[in-house]
Amino acid sequence: MKKILLLGSTGSIGVNTLNVVREFPDEFEVEAITANSNVGLLLDQINEFNPKFAVIRDKSKKAELQELVGAKCKILSGDEGLIEVTKYCEYDILLSALVGFAGLAPTIEGIKRGKRIALANKETLVVAGELVIDLCKKHNAELLPVDSEHSAIFQALIGESQKEIRRIILTASGGPFLNTSKDEFDSVTVEQALDHPNWSMGSKITIDSASMMNKGLEVIEAHWLFNLGRDKIDVVIHPQSIIHSMVEFCDSSIKAQLSVPDMKLPIQYALSYPNRFTSNFIQTDFVKIGSLTFFEPDLNKFKCLQLAFDAMQEGGTAPCILNAANEIAVDKFLKGEIKFSYIPKMISHAIESINNHKSPDLETIFECDRQTRDFATKFKFGEEV
Amino acid sequence: MKKILLLGSTGSIGVNTLNVVREFPDEFEVEAITANSNVGLLLDQINEFNPKFAVIRDKSKKAELQELVGAKCKILSGDEGLIEVTKYCEYDILLSALVGFAGLAPTIEGIKRGKRIALANKETLVVAGELVIDLCKKHNAELLPVDSEHSAIFQALIGESQKEIRRIILTASGGPFLNTSKDEFDSVTVEQALDHPNWSMGSKITIDSASMMNKGLEVIEAHWLFNLGRDKIDVVIHPQSIIHSMVEFCDSSIKAQLSVPDMKLPIQYALSYPNRFTSNFIQTDFVKIGSLTFFEPDLNKFKCLQLAFDAMQEGGTAPCILNAANEIAVDKFLKGEIKFSYIPKMISHAIESINNHKSPDLETIFECDRQTRDFATKFKFGEEV
Repeated sequence: MKKILLLGSTGSIGVNTLNVVREFPDEFEVEAITANSNVGLLLDQINEFNPKFAVIRDKSKKAELQELVGAKCKILSGDEGLIEVTKYCEYDILLSALVGFAGLAPTIEGIKRGKRIALANKETLVVAGELVIDLCKKHNAELLPVDSEHSAIFQALIGESQKEIRRIILTASGGPFLNTSKDEFDSVTVEQALDHPNWSMGSKITIDSASMMNKGLEVIEAHWLFNLGRDKIDVVIHPQSIIHSMVEFCDSSIKAQLSVPDMKLPIQYALSYPNRFTSNFIQTDFVKIGSLTFFEPDLNKFKCLQLAFDAMQEGGTAPCILNAANEIAVDKFLKGEIKFSYIPKMISHAIESINNHKSPDLETIFECDRQTRDFATKFKFGEEV
Repeated sequence: MKKILLLGSTGSIGVNTLNVVREFPDEFEVEAITANSNVGLLLDQINEFNPKFAVIRDKSKKAELQELVGAKCKILSGDEGLIEVTKYCEYDILLSALVGFAGLAPTIEGIKRGKRIALANKETLVVAGELVIDLCKKHNAELLPVDSEHSAIFQALIGESQKEIRRIILTASGGPFLNTSKDEFDSVTVEQALDHPNWSMGSKITIDSASMMNKGLEVIEAHWLFNLGRDKIDVVIHPQSIIHSMVEFCDSSIKAQLSVPDMKLPIQYALSYPNRFTSNFIQTDFVKIGSLTFFEPDLNKFKCLQLAFDAMQEGGTAPCILNAANEIAVDKFLKGEIKFSYIPKMISHAIESINNHKSPDLETIFECDRQTRDFATKFKFGEEV
């Protein structure tokens, strides 16, 4: 019986994680769950899964929630609440599914306790990869990817030697704008950007998929997770999202992991590893699928992907700046404040304007994140764009 | 430095094995090679690879060959010669690439010596699977598949648990007659049947690919190699032959092994396992490939595949009868003596006419093979067809 601390239980990954837990009541129990502000869903989850602790990040809702659940579950709140459960609660697996930079600090607390980290929060590795990998080694924490692409690579590497990797091939659906011309990026709407062809996900990651920044963040995540340089990471557009990613070995043999898209699969694997649990929620019928296609990604059109490759190669706090500027830009796009095409422009400006620090410590990363958010929030597009 | 005994050095697999050995002169040396009757190529191979022994199966050519090579290489001949090198010569790996039933006896000698068996001769497992697997266990011999499909499954299973296999999916190119209607099977020519779209192979296996008997034999081979029943073996048509086969696990995750088709890859893997040796002979470019497609195999059209599934389920000597009748039928087709559509008919007649023996010993298998060949050789298509 494995105890799970689920950070971000009301998001898409969180809900799917609880769907997996529901299927395996003899394998997993939920020790604590956390949500940003969705009291209604959090309450339902508390009533169904009976965690000992729950965190509502929005402090104004703590009292209301504690009254609703009564004594059976202790309610904490705020960022301190997240840190507190991660630091003191009893668990075997930390499933880190917070959105964005906010996932970093609590995930690090789980790492320091040497727990298994099932990582859906890619920003943890994007902004602090070097530091996080070092901490995992130091504290003997096991890092298991939940992203379908990284789970695919992880699975393809089971029993293989890291030294024999020639390259990894991250597949990308290409998102809703795969066949939209670059010129139209000035006029695409929020609704169009949120209409992902294959995956049903939260709004931040769906916009990142539309800009291909999501693939860019995944490139940086893969760089740290599998210890691979730029020359060993390729991206290929695969609109069907059936091949979740591939590894090519030094002998030219390629291994891939496949299935119809369903996040429950990589979530379950990160929980059950090294075992696989019998589960029939997916039926992959290749005859019905019929055809798998592949295209070169257009880095001139999807500038965010190119920016991510560049930030990865630059290293230091460049990925942190990239990520923070992107979070603000996506937020502004979702609010209708900027055009879709301004997302990469805002990121470029931030990277050009903010100092890069090599091998940053955690404090420097937090400072860089704050500084970038401040820069991007205040930034006005003028004649220079 | 691994010593190789290469049974069948002048065939397609044999030549490709020597291509691999040529690339890794510090890893492999050739201890002995064998050929049916191609003295010219065998002589070239002796001169290049300097084996201590060579076998020419055609006894009439032994003296000529011994004179040509002089004292540097001992020439043996006949089936006894094959048995003799396998029994007494010094080697680490037996690469078994003889064509058809003839591969069984010498392969068993290698197994009895507890060697690594790199198995290209699928008939060894088709006709004597139960016995061969038992012998491998008893003598601690390592059985590594060389067929691209089985190598793919073997690679997909590295580090995974056999108990967690839900099914394997053998891919099949569909051969030259994928889009030929069943009615035309009466009139297709030998040249058409020998024109395989993806693989350059010997004539026997190429005809088997055209009839899909090759896939049928592979199904039976996989049944023994991976210890899986009928309900766990699927076949899907994949005309590009890029995905060499797949394994679906109990959690619905699928792993595949891929590359542009080149037999050097699975051969090299069977030699280098558990390591992978750096080799650049293949470049798999998914963008250039563009599309991978999948179709249901038509078992009504490709009757040989259905017959193989049936023989596997019947067990005993049924696969031996299937194989022997097929060898004779293919030979007759290649000689222009029977129509392509008569191949499955001849096999059906043999299976219906010859007694099946359950759990046969080696002697029973040899006797069944002889009896079937005799039956099929004499068989005349009359009104009953």
